[in-house]
Amino acid sequence: MVRPAGKPPLSSAAAEFGARVRARRHELALSQEALADRSDLHWTYFGQVERGQVNISLHNILKIADALEIDPGDLVTGLT
Amino acid sequence: MVRPAGKPPLSSAAAEFGARVRARRHELALSQEALADRSDLHWTYFGQVERGQVNISLHNILKIADALEIDPGDLVTGLT
Repeated sequence: MVRPAGKPPLSSAAAEFGARVRARRHELALSQEALADRSDLHWTYFGQVERGQVNISLHNILKIADALEIDPGDLVTGLT
Repeated sequence: MVRPAGKPPLSSAAAEFGARVRARRHELALSQEALADRSDLHWTYFGQVERGQVNISLHNILKIADALEIDPGDLVTGLT
């Protein structure tokens, strides 16, 4: 089955942010659902974030970093 | 003249973010207006950000970091 392409990322920065979230989630061997359980964000929101479709807010960056057990700076360093 | 207290910060994270923006702006000896000229954000928005009254988005974090000539990670590292 071919996966539909879906919406494009909002920006290269949002795409890279999402790629970092996904990579770290995979490091922790967590599903989007499991990550959602660690925060008060919905699992469908993590999908949008990982696809770079969200211009995420500071507060949600911090929630996600906390759930991923990393410093929030790691998610945004070097982005332009 | 006593400065009015104004609105409180949204959160300790937003307050700390704003304090970092203000400190770096002062390092560069720039006014809020001059910083606004370097980005496409309005100077009144910088005032709100510096007072911690904005749950700032990723894209605006990157614009401000660029205008301040710093890595965006420096603005959010260690925030919780």
